[in-house]
Amino acid sequence: MSLTVVGTMAFDEIETPFGKSGKIIGGSATYIAWAASNFVQPINQVSVIGEDFPKAELDALTAKGVALDGVQVKKGEKSFYWSGKYHMDMNTRDSLATELNVLADFKPVIPESYQGSEFLILGNLTPQVQMSVLDQMKERPRLIVMDTMNFWMEVALDDLLKVLKRVDVLMVNDGEARQLSGEYSLVKAARKILEMGPKYLIIKKGEHGALLFFENHVFFAPAMPLDEVYDPTGAGDTFAGGFIGHLAKTKDISFENMKTAIIVGSAMASFCVEKFGTERIREVSKGEIAARIEQFVQLVNFDIDLV
Amino acid sequence: MSLTVVGTMAFDEIETPFGKSGKIIGGSATYIAWAASNFVQPINQVSVIGEDFPKAELDALTAKGVALDGVQVKKGEKSFYWSGKYHMDMNTRDSLATELNVLADFKPVIPESYQGSEFLILGNLTPQVQMSVLDQMKERPRLIVMDTMNFWMEVALDDLLKVLKRVDVLMVNDGEARQLSGEYSLVKAARKILEMGPKYLIIKKGEHGALLFFENHVFFAPAMPLDEVYDPTGAGDTFAGGFIGHLAKTKDISFENMKTAIIVGSAMASFCVEKFGTERIREVSKGEIAARIEQFVQLVNFDIDLV
Repeated sequence: MSLTVVGTMAFDEIETPFGKSGKIIGGSATYIAWAASNFVQPINQVSVIGEDFPKAELDALTAKGVALDGVQVKKGEKSFYWSGKYHMDMNTRDSLATELNVLADFKPVIPESYQGSEFLILGNLTPQVQMSVLDQMKERPRLIVMDTMNFWMEVALDDLLKVLKRVDVLMVNDGEARQLSGEYSLVKAARKILEMGPKYLIIKKGEHGALLFFENHVFFAPAMPLDEVYDPTGAGDTFAGGFIGHLAKTKDISFENMKTAIIVGSAMASFCVEKFGTERIREVSKGEIAARIEQFVQLVNFDIDLV
Repeated sequence: MSLTVVGTMAFDEIETPFGKSGKIIGGSATYIAWAASNFVQPINQVSVIGEDFPKAELDALTAKGVALDGVQVKKGEKSFYWSGKYHMDMNTRDSLATELNVLADFKPVIPESYQGSEFLILGNLTPQVQMSVLDQMKERPRLIVMDTMNFWMEVALDDLLKVLKRVDVLMVNDGEARQLSGEYSLVKAARKILEMGPKYLIIKKGEHGALLFFENHVFFAPAMPLDEVYDPTGAGDTFAGGFIGHLAKTKDISFENMKTAIIVGSAMASFCVEKFGTERIREVSKGEIAARIEQFVQLVNFDIDLV
């Protein structure tokens, strides 16, 4: 089994300047699985849901090669729920409601069938939960990628720093990189964070693209300029799913291949924002993905022969 | 004579979180000339200065191959003066003082020796002044590039729209593109602006890079991630100077070569912000420029063989 995904499976209710989503499926592990399953199957999903989580969604994931042995279903409980409203610029949002429900005492259990996974991605969860997953892996995966958020830097920094020492790739956004490092310059921030444990750091800048730092190297991938960003929810997780999916497919964890993986992740994220929630990424075809990646090549490709 | 540059030559006084510049040399034509002269000489400068403008600066420009026949010196008058203070994020600034002085009734005169210029760049000035330059060119240059700003969209939109019909490349920042088009999406904004006259549109996004639009094509160049941005003043004009300098040097105005020119412009701008004012771009060597351009190649280059 090659890729294990740990994160939330949840309900979201989203309002953007373009409309309201109603109650739809969300969650970091959901987005990661939908994106990554285009590149590698099976995917070993680790999450927790309530009795209210629709069977149709679980069936759809199963059909995409997502194993659900590690997804706990809590009888008589409700799934994690988040609602939020985006501002006109789509870069900022207000959380309207956050109901942890089943997430409040989530204790992930890694099924025996998931052991031996070569790739592991830890979606944004409490550092304690992330650590518990690492502790349960009998054999260290070849590559461990983690996401986190500013909230854990504020309430669980010590635990977060412990997890950081055990992962290979950290993914954060620009604000989080600044908060974690205390440096405004992203170059200086990256230098400090790479001393905290991870060998690779990805700084996501939303519509402004993403940076990959490794030793003294830096790689930049733009976001695809789009007519409209309809809903940015899940774009970061979709990016993560495309990134780890490409690496798990190619089994090549060199810096060079991570660059390509970042482009793949950016391509997947560019689909995600075109519709509400997972709507676009659950229908996207391999042909569309290949065409979008080719658009990225055109977007950044230039002739270096300067005469 | 191949490149004519029209714009301001002025005094700036800048405050950033890193310090105060004191009264230093600035102006759009100054930055453009310093940047472009690394690629093409002579440069035909068109501007206006007061008696207070230092002879040493004029001599330095002359030594860099900048012809000053088109620079009017107004006896007993003072040069254009601007002072401003940058906020901590370096993306926003407050103007503390703007004294037009000689600029108030600037009537550019194109010397006979400048006629026949193949390349023309109109720095940010009133649209009437830009139009007057176009009217004086006996033969239309092969490529006309113009800059402008939000202020002219507010107070001289009709004139601005007339100039737009006569240029090949418009350079604006993201906020200006949105204001001019009435569209928030930069892709939609570009589509509208390209219908206003220019064949090419460059949207500058500061630390977030620049976009080049042409027909249905789009190219993106990142800004170089730097340890510190010391002073962003003049970065846009330096970018413009590198861009037009490379085009004038290569005499190739294809879309493909414009992509390379944008990378050259981005490289020059990345030097500009490293020190106050023109300090860094007046000392930069050809070797440093070549090395910086190679860094841009490394920054965005990825392997597209997706297996």
